[in-house]
Amino acid sequence: MRAVVPYDGKRPKTRLAPMLTADERAAFSRAMLDDVLAALSAIGAGCSVLSTVPLDTAVATVVVDDRPLTDAVNRFLDSVEESIAVVMADLALATPDALTRLTSTEADVAIVPGRGGGTNALVVRHDEFRVDYHGGSYLDHRRIAREIGASVSVVDSYRLGTDVDEPADLVEVLLHGEGRAATWLADAGFEVATEADRVRIRR
Amino acid sequence: MRAVVPYDGKRPKTRLAPMLTADERAAFSRAMLDDVLAALSAIGAGCSVLSTVPLDTAVATVVVDDRPLTDAVNRFLDSVEESIAVVMADLALATPDALTRLTSTEADVAIVPGRGGGTNALVVRHDEFRVDYHGGSYLDHRRIAREIGASVSVVDSYRLGTDVDEPADLVEVLLHGEGRAATWLADAGFEVATEADRVRIRR
Repeated sequence: MRAVVPYDGKRPKTRLAPMLTADERAAFSRAMLDDVLAALSAIGAGCSVLSTVPLDTAVATVVVDDRPLTDAVNRFLDSVEESIAVVMADLALATPDALTRLTSTEADVAIVPGRGGGTNALVVRHDEFRVDYHGGSYLDHRRIAREIGASVSVVDSYRLGTDVDEPADLVEVLLHGEGRAATWLADAGFEVATEADRVRIRR
Repeated sequence: MRAVVPYDGKRPKTRLAPMLTADERAAFSRAMLDDVLAALSAIGAGCSVLSTVPLDTAVATVVVDDRPLTDAVNRFLDSVEESIAVVMADLALATPDALTRLTSTEADVAIVPGRGGGTNALVVRHDEFRVDYHGGSYLDHRRIAREIGASVSVVDSYRLGTDVDEPADLVEVLLHGEGRAATWLADAGFEVATEADRVRIRR
């Protein structure tokens, strides 16, 4: 299967500003991208990164497109004939097993919802399906599929359902991450701190 | 399989106070409990509710125990010989499919982590395993299993990984819930409101 990973290299992960400097956010977001590409490569997916800036990587082709996410992904979908996975670059908990559960679905459109009604990953096997990431994209993607008569499968994955946007998400990377992003956080001095009823991150 | 669902009927869901009155929290938490019991019953599990207060339900036996969660669950584990699922009462997105993925594991201990390092569901097949829900219980349960030589499986489920504790969790129930809790929220006037990059709940 082909996979495309949209990546914003211009101002990555601004909502992590309370925890990380701009340079740190750039390095951490790149570590997450590399984890996603490694997990996709491990299941045999041919990867393209759809990046807002030029990017060096040995494991994916890079398509530079600085248009908004929805437009860039839809142009990419226009350009390919085969079925394709669209996987966000900040799924730092992605593993080959979790991605296999996504790609082994048979529906025309498979969706992994993220927290707050977003769409963290898709598999598109219907040539009329186009994305709309603005607002509550999970409901929109279900509606779009319904309108074109495409069957939908929703994949139940905590790993793929966890996108790393906000400070509270970082503890999930330390708890469950198995790749470079988790190592990057540990090297940057972050650790898990136990509180009364849950754990949080501490630096 | 036997399943035990701990339920605090005394002061349920206090962190939802910004959104719901005490009476509403009681009704909503009961709707979530009923959803969990219905999903467990649908996969053939014999259910016990381990409740801090007496409770009327036709689909489960009720064991009243007002001790802290960890003590009450461990006493229950002491009392049964067979393998047992321990499922939190606020997993309002639980479905029979998701629970089947949990109960069909073969490890001595199967764990579904929740957001923030908690333990949302367990299957215990090792007679020495005991729980410790205080603090970051996911890491503690892995450690406890390691110490007694029990094999561990971690189940990757967004549905079971989502416990409903805080106002932001309510939107997940509206988006993905299929039972009484989702209906209760809709009847109480809650709806999904689309913002720029995600959806939130509105009343």
